[in-house]
Amino acid sequence: MASSSSSPSSNHQNPELRKDIISNRWIIFSPARSKRPSDFKSKSPIPSNPNPNHNQPCPFCIGHEHECAPEIFRVPPDGPDWNLRVIQNLYPALSRDLRFGSNHTNRSGSVLDGFGFHDVVIETPVHSVQLSDLSPREIGQVFLAHSKRIKQVASNDDIKYVQVFKNHGASAGASMSHSHSQILAVPIIPPNVSTRLESMKSYFDQNGKCCLCESQSENLLINSSTYFFSMVPFAASFPFEMWIVPQYHSAHFHELDDEKAVDLGGLLKLMLQKMSLQLNNPPFNFMIHTSPLHANESELAYTHWFIQIVPQLSGIAGFEMGTGCYINPVFPEDAAKVLREVNVA
Amino acid sequence: MASSSSSPSSNHQNPELRKDIISNRWIIFSPARSKRPSDFKSKSPIPSNPNPNHNQPCPFCIGHEHECAPEIFRVPPDGPDWNLRVIQNLYPALSRDLRFGSNHTNRSGSVLDGFGFHDVVIETPVHSVQLSDLSPREIGQVFLAHSKRIKQVASNDDIKYVQVFKNHGASAGASMSHSHSQILAVPIIPPNVSTRLESMKSYFDQNGKCCLCESQSENLLINSSTYFFSMVPFAASFPFEMWIVPQYHSAHFHELDDEKAVDLGGLLKLMLQKMSLQLNNPPFNFMIHTSPLHANESELAYTHWFIQIVPQLSGIAGFEMGTGCYINPVFPEDAAKVLREVNVA
Ligand SMILES: Nc1ncnc2c1ncn2[C@@H]1O[C@H](COP(=O)(O)OP(=O)(O)O[C@H]2O[C@H](CO)[C@@H](O)[C@H](O)[C@H]2O)[C@@H](O)[C@H]1O
Ligand SMILES: Nc1ncnc2c1ncn2[C@@H]1O[C@H](COP(=O)(O)OP(=O)(O)O[C@H]2O[C@H](CO)[C@@H](O)[C@H](O)[C@H]2O)[C@@H](O)[C@H]1O
Repeated sequence: MASSSSSPSSNHQNPELRKDIISNRWIIFSPARSKRPSDFKSKSPIPSNPNPNHNQPCPFCIGHEHECAPEIFRVPPDGPDWNLRVIQNLYPALSRDLRFGSNHTNRSGSVLDGFGFHDVVIETPVHSVQLSDLSPREIGQVFLAHSKRIKQVASNDDIKYVQVFKNHGASAGASMSHSHSQILAVPIIPPNVSTRLESMKSYFDQNGKCCLCESQSENLLINSSTYFFSMVPFAASFPFEMWIVPQYHSAHFHELDDEKAVDLGGLLKLMLQKMSLQLNNPPFNFMIHTSPLHANESELAYTHWFIQIVPQLSGIAGFEMGTGCYINPVFPEDAAKVLREVNVA
Repeated sequence: MASSSSSPSSNHQNPELRKDIISNRWIIFSPARSKRPSDFKSKSPIPSNPNPNHNQPCPFCIGHEHECAPEIFRVPPDGPDWNLRVIQNLYPALSRDLRFGSNHTNRSGSVLDGFGFHDVVIETPVHSVQLSDLSPREIGQVFLAHSKRIKQVASNDDIKYVQVFKNHGASAGASMSHSHSQILAVPIIPPNVSTRLESMKSYFDQNGKCCLCESQSENLLINSSTYFFSMVPFAASFPFEMWIVPQYHSAHFHELDDEKAVDLGGLLKLMLQKMSLQLNNPPFNFMIHTSPLHANESELAYTHWFIQIVPQLSGIAGFEMGTGCYINPVFPEDAAKVLREVNVA
């Protein structure tokens, strides 16, 4: 069998399993799966367009600040005309008021106090504006707000990792239609992060290089900007999953500076526009994958932050829940080719 | 802080993180999350009732056998009046015709031929009958069919693990509404299985006992039968997640005998009825978690099969996809109490 990463798309008939160096998890690629029928009438994807219940005013809209949990900061810092606000989540998964420290193990497992910070970034004052409608500079401001907030919570030694993520559209899990993202700072290193670190370390130990610094491949590339490139990962878990990766080595997302933030904003905007055009404005999630806050020198050498964008085209079910192994009907090289060629006017 | 597994439900106000011995994964328990509003009109759960498109006849119905991929076996074995059929999946994730063996690693990761068996178990000849409508003996027949098929594929040395699972309802991922389950035999040990094995091994090494043999706890128990008990796991990933566990030590699900199968059928039926009554007939998945096919003697001592039942009450989103860490708004002791007390007439 020829190396699939170099084979043309027409060769991709047979199913194949792939594991990439970063997530170290087998994915099943199976084009046949995309042809299966469904007899559920309701199976059509829920559109991701904001579809708010207009009887309920939106607390994230400008002028409704008093309906929100307390503000942490706004941009620009003063005055009523804000571009974005970082606020506390009113229904937080973790509590900022709990004294961290209680940790015990019993016969069934371990228990830890639910200490952490759960914040919301309101990305625009206007309800009808979506993230991809903003300019590269404005999207850059959103990333700089994430980064500023990570630096603030990092001063707390008990916070080990910060997950920044965005849910867009009801079937991507969003409960609020007003454009926003979330920042959840947790007192543990999450399982996906430990697995990624181990895997990147083992590549570094063998090759003396960071695996993401080495990951540019012609067949998988979508676009590049001055400081970043976008690609479909070699073992994408989801059809048309995309990654945005810094071309320079950097362990921590929150090292982002102003110039790079605008450049990143431009490339994210392009990817969201391409996704929207090609896949009919799907619901989506994005996740910023960074390194643990208190990473040591050696970890800094082999970890490299990136953004994962996942359009929600099909759900997962019993096989994925049971095994942790995903089935993707679209080969990464085919997805990359399609996305490379989308023409954004 | 008192041990939460012994504290009454009224104490469960603050969020808490828990990790159990079996899956070894931190879960965030956060009752506050259940109160958050949603402004998406379409957020109401899709009912799980079969809602077939009646223009399309169902290939899984009796009399439509010719519309299906080839049959592997039926019960009873001969004649047109079958109770259940095991057939090939017409749109398989893996191919039974691929010669296994090709496995190579390149700069981006590893590639393996997509060899495997993907089968469907049609659980009843009648479209409108659901699994929970069947008698304990009939449900037992379904489990014995899974078990028989596992033994068949086990004769192939290249198959390492067999995942049996059921998707019920469109929002649990089902594409077919006729009651069925699936059997996917894979040439790898899936990540969740390796993690579980490592974790169970480490408990065994420390305590000299199988952790699931030791897992009965008054606060988490739902019901028991002669050979099985049902419980909410100590660190349930999902609200009202339930496990059915053999009371006797057994590494492999496919060791199930006829008498135990009927007993298991009765307890599964009871759990599905309780779930349906308490949670308004939700979509659900169940997964049979067993041991790798070619497990060695020492693995057999510390692994113990069980069934995980997950009602689909809320989706997952960016945080869970990013971290692998789940947020559950319902404390396991509270869910167990509720489920214990549901009165099935
Ligand atoms: N007035 C107000 N002031 C401040 N905050 C307010 C508020 N009103 C609502 N909020 C918060 O705003 C957030 C909006 O978040 P999203 O729409 O991205 O998804 P949500 O967190 O609800 O759940 C999705 O994401 C999580 C995490 O991935 C999954 O657990 C879950 O299943 C999925 O539906 C909610 O977390 C909510 O608590
Ligand atoms: N005439 C026929 N003969 C034989 N087989 C037929 C057939 N017509 C359809 N099938 C098969 O029947 C199966 C029905 O399975 P389910 O309804 O449980 O979910 P499905 O596998 O589609 O996907 C769900 O489960 C998988 C695995 O968890 C997820 O990857 C996916 O996202 C989720 O929607 C399908 O796999 C289909 O290929």
